[in-house]
Amino acid sequence: MTKVCQIGLFGLGTVGTGTARILLDQAELLARRAGSRLELARVCDRHPDDLRGLPLDPGRVTADVRDLLDDPAIRVFVELIGGIEPARSVVLQAIAAGKHVVTANKALLAEHGSEIFAAAAEAGVAVGFEASVGGGIPVIKTLKEGLVANRIETVAGIMNGTANYVLTRMTDDGLAFDEALAEAQRLGYAEADPTFDVDGIDTAHKLAILAALAFATPVGPADIATEGISRLTPLDITFAAEFGYRIKLLAIARHRPEGLELRVHPTMIPADHLLARVEGAANAFYLVGDAVGQVLLHGPGAGQMPTGSAVVADIVDIARGIAAGVPPCGGPFEALAPVPLRPMEALVCRYYFRFSAKDRPGVLARIAGILGDNGISIAAVIQKGRRSRAAVPIVMLTHEAEEARVRRALARIDELDVVTDPTTVIRIEDPATLAASANAEVTPA
Amino acid sequence: MTKVCQIGLFGLGTVGTGTARILLDQAELLARRAGSRLELARVCDRHPDDLRGLPLDPGRVTADVRDLLDDPAIRVFVELIGGIEPARSVVLQAIAAGKHVVTANKALLAEHGSEIFAAAAEAGVAVGFEASVGGGIPVIKTLKEGLVANRIETVAGIMNGTANYVLTRMTDDGLAFDEALAEAQRLGYAEADPTFDVDGIDTAHKLAILAALAFATPVGPADIATEGISRLTPLDITFAAEFGYRIKLLAIARHRPEGLELRVHPTMIPADHLLARVEGAANAFYLVGDAVGQVLLHGPGAGQMPTGSAVVADIVDIARGIAAGVPPCGGPFEALAPVPLRPMEALVCRYYFRFSAKDRPGVLARIAGILGDNGISIAAVIQKGRRSRAAVPIVMLTHEAEEARVRRALARIDELDVVTDPTTVIRIEDPATLAASANAEVTPA
Repeated sequence: MTKVCQIGLFGLGTVGTGTARILLDQAELLARRAGSRLELARVCDRHPDDLRGLPLDPGRVTADVRDLLDDPAIRVFVELIGGIEPARSVVLQAIAAGKHVVTANKALLAEHGSEIFAAAAEAGVAVGFEASVGGGIPVIKTLKEGLVANRIETVAGIMNGTANYVLTRMTDDGLAFDEALAEAQRLGYAEADPTFDVDGIDTAHKLAILAALAFATPVGPADIATEGISRLTPLDITFAAEFGYRIKLLAIARHRPEGLELRVHPTMIPADHLLARVEGAANAFYLVGDAVGQVLLHGPGAGQMPTGSAVVADIVDIARGIAAGVPPCGGPFEALAPVPLRPMEALVCRYYFRFSAKDRPGVLARIAGILGDNGISIAAVIQKGRRSRAAVPIVMLTHEAEEARVRRALARIDELDVVTDPTTVIRIEDPATLAASANAEVTPA
Repeated sequence: MTKVCQIGLFGLGTVGTGTARILLDQAELLARRAGSRLELARVCDRHPDDLRGLPLDPGRVTADVRDLLDDPAIRVFVELIGGIEPARSVVLQAIAAGKHVVTANKALLAEHGSEIFAAAAEAGVAVGFEASVGGGIPVIKTLKEGLVANRIETVAGIMNGTANYVLTRMTDDGLAFDEALAEAQRLGYAEADPTFDVDGIDTAHKLAILAALAFATPVGPADIATEGISRLTPLDITFAAEFGYRIKLLAIARHRPEGLELRVHPTMIPADHLLARVEGAANAFYLVGDAVGQVLLHGPGAGQMPTGSAVVADIVDIARGIAAGVPPCGGPFEALAPVPLRPMEALVCRYYFRFSAKDRPGVLARIAGILGDNGISIAAVIQKGRRSRAAVPIVMLTHEAEEARVRRALARIDELDVVTDPTTVIRIEDPATLAASANAEVTPA
């Protein structure tokens, strides 16, 4: 009498193990909530003898993914192996076989999302991808369903826990970037090769997925101007604090009349803003809709059980649909249509510059002169810590300026013989600009 | 060829007008997302001649709700008149007529939710109630669907924007309670009769709805120990700040082995905690699940367009189900079963006391003696501002103590001849206790 929904799980790594644990431990609870028993029918992993302490029947564990793909009883295929291949081919095969798909694979969706969603639409199956962004935080569901009545105007946030942990340690404990990163690696917050995290690539993947969903447009990582945090120093963090700011690696997608802004870079935000208070390995998503105004979601952006929580939520959504006789809608809620992108050079914001210059008379005048020639107006200057002969930091905050002019000015300044190192640039985000909405009632935040 | 979902809207007040505006202005977008055209077929309001500037066909506006209830083409009945009656009777009639219901009525659901959800289950219709709690913040959807894989352990938060606005002004600008409230009324954040908001009743209604959903148990406002903010003074806020805390009106539902804690009261929380940074009229919901850990949702807790956004999201969910041939599940996802409640007297936490005492020798010893007799241990004392003859404030922070003992001790202390006013009590919430979970990976927050 009880309905059953058979699940095939591909990949028994960290998230796969968390997912399996929830499915097995909470079987009764989930059956009530899903309207059918969620049966972990088959598990595929390249180490089929290592059951990770899970109470799995060894007969259900295989090293050959065909055992899952060829089993018509399996209705939901859960891809948790990560990476582009073989994940892409296997997911497309599962879709072609009429299976619903749930995946946590952000690189796959960021690079090949359009192809996968198109295939799913054609096959009439759902693709659940809540776990691909923000771990256990239901940001996909919030964009797709909770804010369905809104035109989304801004999607921004702190989307990489490793980078945020590193910045938090640099800020709170004055550590250098390398020290904070080593600490993150020691604690398991960072991979042995942390490039994806600290260079902003992982963040750009997540922003690509969210922007495609929020703005119903095909967006890939290549469309996103991306800078990481590895060039930041404790000096920048100290100066930022003196001006009342904290530095965060923000992802920003903003839909403006001039086009869609897409960028990932270190950003100075006012210290009392909620995004500035996101600490450690947490993630936060800041969404602005024309009706709702500003909404912020905060929580664990990664981890075995939080990400497993998101995978299982997608499975339940799909199983509910199967139990009721229909699948839920899976991909972005509208057909993707290109939206004009706004080039990074057209960005207008305030800037923080840290120049490294020799301590000689006239240096400040030469730098200020080049900025003036490019129409960049200076709002504040700090120059301290004079040590004879050594290079001194000169810090400037600008009024609003255009990125193209900033790049031209800095190219000239960095060629000056008195300038010893490339200038550090940090964009300053004005919360009012980030929240700016044509229609929304902006509530006190 | 295009499917149509006909909607009846009962009540063209603030939220009703916002809802109608979204349905009319975003008709095309919503039709794509819902899979059917959402047609505002009929509107009922007691002032049917006042169309609030909406482009409504006057022939569709009526003063008689029967015109909606008796129209079989109307599939979704949206109740936005507020209050218990006639809302309750009309909603039950709509359900009996086989219509799905969407409501923003927190008082109705808090008091009569069990009756309404039971009737809906029997009739096989959905009840959408996202707008009843947290305005545009999708906290209901997050609990019901986003965190469906979790056993919820804590639901807490700042659920009343008026009270939070008053506390923010008292904290940031040193206003007295009455001054801050008058300011809130002037700005439209508070009603002429603010009792519901500042006495915690509105917050208790919302907590009752969330707790019933999260813990699948029938909870009414009478089950919730409720205290408001009207007795707080700027002095309490200043002392709290000296100890590193901010005071917020928190709603807390915590599922512990000993039973379910349900309480609404002014609470001291560490100034660097995210809940302490929720400013002005914003709301924030803090959810702890056994798999996901801690999630926080922040945004506008009220207002015409944010609440309209939540109403329309529910309509779209229901219309999608109708378009696909099935309704979504509506009420709490499990049959309600009573969970043992933990009496307030059994609460164990740290406390802040502000005694008003005559400035005489031996007063501190007498107070401390009574506390000691009741097994309450003092962690810190501040006594300052000695003005001869006038009563002086004596502030104490305790170690963990049991509420029952605190009440006994304070009853004796408040009877002392040297004590001039009832003692002010504020409970101190330890974020680690709030987050405590049997299973969750707790991420750095």
